[in-house]
Amino acid sequence: MEKTALFPGSFDPITKGHFEIVLKGLTLFDRIVIGVGSNSAKKTLYSVEQRIKMIQDVFKNYPAVSVVPYTGLTVTFCKSIGAGFILRGLRSGLDFEYEQSIAFANKELDGSIETVFLLSSPSYSNISSTIVRDIIANDGDYTKFVPPGLVL
Amino acid sequence: MEKTALFPGSFDPITKGHFEIVLKGLTLFDRIVIGVGSNSAKKTLYSVEQRIKMIQDVFKNYPAVSVVPYTGLTVTFCKSIGAGFILRGLRSGLDFEYEQSIAFANKELDGSIETVFLLSSPSYSNISSTIVRDIIANDGDYTKFVPPGLVL
Amino acid sequence: MEKTALFPGSFDPITKGHFEIVLKGLTLFDRIVIGVGSNSAKKTLYSVEQRIKMIQDVFKNYPAVSVVPYTGLTVTFCKSIGAGFILRGLRSGLDFEYEQSIAFANKELDGSIETVFLLSSPSYSNISSTIVRDIIANDGDYTKFVPPGLVL
Amino acid sequence: MEKTALFPGSFDPITKGHFEIVLKGLTLFDRIVIGVGSNSAKKTLYSVEQRIKMIQDVFKNYPAVSVVPYTGLTVTFCKSIGAGFILRGLRSGLDFEYEQSIAFANKELDGSIETVFLLSSPSYSNISSTIVRDIIANDGDYTKFVPPGLVL
Amino acid sequence: MEKTALFPGSFDPITKGHFEIVLKGLTLFDRIVIGVGSNSAKKTLYSVEQRIKMIQDVFKNYPAVSVVPYTGLTVTFCKSIGAGFILRGLRSGLDFEYEQSIAFANKELDGSIETVFLLSSPSYSNISSTIVRDIIANDGDYTKFVPPGLVL
Amino acid sequence: MEKTALFPGSFDPITKGHFEIVLKGLTLFDRIVIGVGSNSAKKTLYSVEQRIKMIQDVFKNYPAVSVVPYTGLTVTFCKSIGAGFILRGLRSGLDFEYEQSIAFANKELDGSIETVFLLSSPSYSNISSTIVRDIIANDGDYTKFVPPGLVL
Repeated sequence: MEKTALFPGSFDPITKGHFEIVLKGLTLFDRIVIGVGSNSAKKTLYSVEQRIKMIQDVFKNYPAVSVVPYTGLTVTFCKSIGAGFILRGLRSGLDFEYEQSIAFANKELDGSIETVFLLSSPSYSNISSTIVRDIIANDGDYTKFVPPGLVL
Repeated sequence: MEKTALFPGSFDPITKGHFEIVLKGLTLFDRIVIGVGSNSAKKTLYSVEQRIKMIQDVFKNYPAVSVVPYTGLTVTFCKSIGAGFILRGLRSGLDFEYEQSIAFANKELDGSIETVFLLSSPSYSNISSTIVRDIIANDGDYTKFVPPGLVL
Repeated sequence: MEKTALFPGSFDPITKGHFEIVLKGLTLFDRIVIGVGSNSAKKTLYSVEQRIKMIQDVFKNYPAVSVVPYTGLTVTFCKSIGAGFILRGLRSGLDFEYEQSIAFANKELDGSIETVFLLSSPSYSNISSTIVRDIIANDGDYTKFVPPGLVL
Repeated sequence: MEKTALFPGSFDPITKGHFEIVLKGLTLFDRIVIGVGSNSAKKTLYSVEQRIKMIQDVFKNYPAVSVVPYTGLTVTFCKSIGAGFILRGLRSGLDFEYEQSIAFANKELDGSIETVFLLSSPSYSNISSTIVRDIIANDGDYTKFVPPGLVL
Repeated sequence: MEKTALFPGSFDPITKGHFEIVLKGLTLFDRIVIGVGSNSAKKTLYSVEQRIKMIQDVFKNYPAVSVVPYTGLTVTFCKSIGAGFILRGLRSGLDFEYEQSIAFANKELDGSIETVFLLSSPSYSNISSTIVRDIIANDGDYTKFVPPGLVL
Repeated sequence: MEKTALFPGSFDPITKGHFEIVLKGLTLFDRIVIGVGSNSAKKTLYSVEQRIKMIQDVFKNYPAVSVVPYTGLTVTFCKSIGAGFILRGLRSGLDFEYEQSIAFANKELDGSIETVFLLSSPSYSNISSTIVRDIIANDGDYTKFVPPGLVL
């Protein structure tokens, strides 16, 4: 049976860390859907359209990876795209406690969907979109922190 | 001597986790006052009045539990209601570090008031008001996360 | 391509938590090999043979699960059994930091093998073999903490 | 109804931190029984008899505090002495995760016994028996770390 | 060679904890520049000018300490003032994970600048500007939490 | 005034992580003394003499670095070698809580000695002597984890 995972997030913007988790995830899943959260209340640096465009560029040579906007509950969205798994990267103990809460809530809402965690490499384990946005805002060199070839 | 504890929080809305901590607290304290923070600066999903009404409904059969709005310093409010203890639930290591800072500041401000911690059950230890609000905002089934009978 | 994961551990004894991780893992992997560490230096309550026998009993109706003793480096053992993944359960932030170190060392030793993490359910997330051994040593009721039907 | 708490530990030796938690506990409980674990397998610096004698000296002016050796499961011992609560001090997030596991196991074994946590003061929150033993082994000045008047 | 460290922060307002870290830092560095972040987006209780004035008062007898506003990337600012080090205080494990991310990003942006961490004393390790602002907002006694002599 | 730091540890064996912390420390201190703990009770893989010899080899081109065995309290040893600082590396939040306890105890024993923390690089932040010993015991390739040129 085909195994599909949703990789949900804000991706404002996508980082090297996100990129790596998807590549690693492809050894485990047949198909990965990157779900770009389009929560209207949350102010983002890039629009949903811009974020989707960036991710499409980054993964243009990966036919098993697709990108879609999403709203609503994560488990409901999983159901609608036929994903039995939620893929998440873990960077630190802090990350873990946060992810655990979300994963347990999702499990409670829909027991059939399992969250799978992969580790960021040590060199990527301190990269976050927040830090990348801060570097961009201050005209720093963001290229070390985003996937190869991505221009912001 | 009667032992009174203040159980302070935003309760936006009250969760199964809060409910359980109060029930456990009743084995320890003669009276528990649930103090609903009404910090005007903080935007909440439910008004103070709505939150107080919900909590009153939930605890209507528990005469030792009362609900009041409060503003100002927690220790000052404790003094005003004759509470010698602050009751708090702990869910995770993350919770702990945050609670420890608050408890130490309170102790510094009034050395006579002690903070007492009880643990949430494993099944409730990942429920937070934030997650409940998110489920509500997305039309999910919130009833598994709030006290029995509570309609939001 | 068939996906095989090694689930390594001491399993002294196997707990409900271990059991659950393997069941969850079966939705992700075609085959799970439970590798029972037989480090001669470490004193265990049960012998390798006893631990293997217990696990075989627990999984007798799961043909995709097999149990073998192992010594040496985990990544070398993975190679020898054709496993491209190491499966681990995560219970807490404490667990996480420990697991992260091991996973990074394994990755450094063999970049082709990926560690995949699944979460224990809240109700199992505080069960450890250490606690089970302590309950057994004190004639407590261990049955709530081990897989259904396991007699120690 | 009288409220009795067990304060279990190794107390090898008792520290200023332990002392403070018992004093704070006396505002909450009518009676505190200090249970000195006498696990024969664990090598200690002081014998059970020495540890009990020290604690008796420290609390000689506190009639609500008694000291007893104990073996076996903590919840079983609580039952035998009529204690409905287990009292524990928390010093750090690390402490917390460990204590949470123990408390959940105890709850599982006997749902009627509740673990209550109090915080060590900041100045005592880094004192452990391990550090005190290390200072003693190296002829350091241990008096800053143990209850006033205690001679080791 | 003269060793200069930047001590960056919001200092809204400066606390006893900040004060102590600078004093400790003076045993290590020849010159400490306190950089007051003037991120226009972030709403603060005190203006940059007020925060700088407070810090100047607090350190008026310390010629090796100077205070300047700063914007932009921290490493770029270090370069502009000839600082080879960033000084930061650590209070808790939570602090640590946050600081580690920032330090790694800074290192990536400029490998020549090293972040040096000192510990807050136990009694100051739970003081934060957030707590001080909360006490001020509620007319509490803030003087225990800020450097001696500081009037807000 | 010359600034001397003690870098204490077991170094059983020295890792790439230790090596890096000393190199970073040399930008801060004039002299670093590596103190090799020779606690007779603790069983080590390499003798004190072997560990000292390895470290001497690794730092043979660094005249500001010396290596000595030590026993007794760390602060007493600092005094005897004229070190006003203790240098320690931090890898994770777990590390931090452990290091904080030790640093506070040392401060309590001798207020004049300050502990200074530097961060391991991300790629070294999961290397520990324990993991290196495990790799050696299993005939794995340890060279990625120890300083360049070190033969064990």
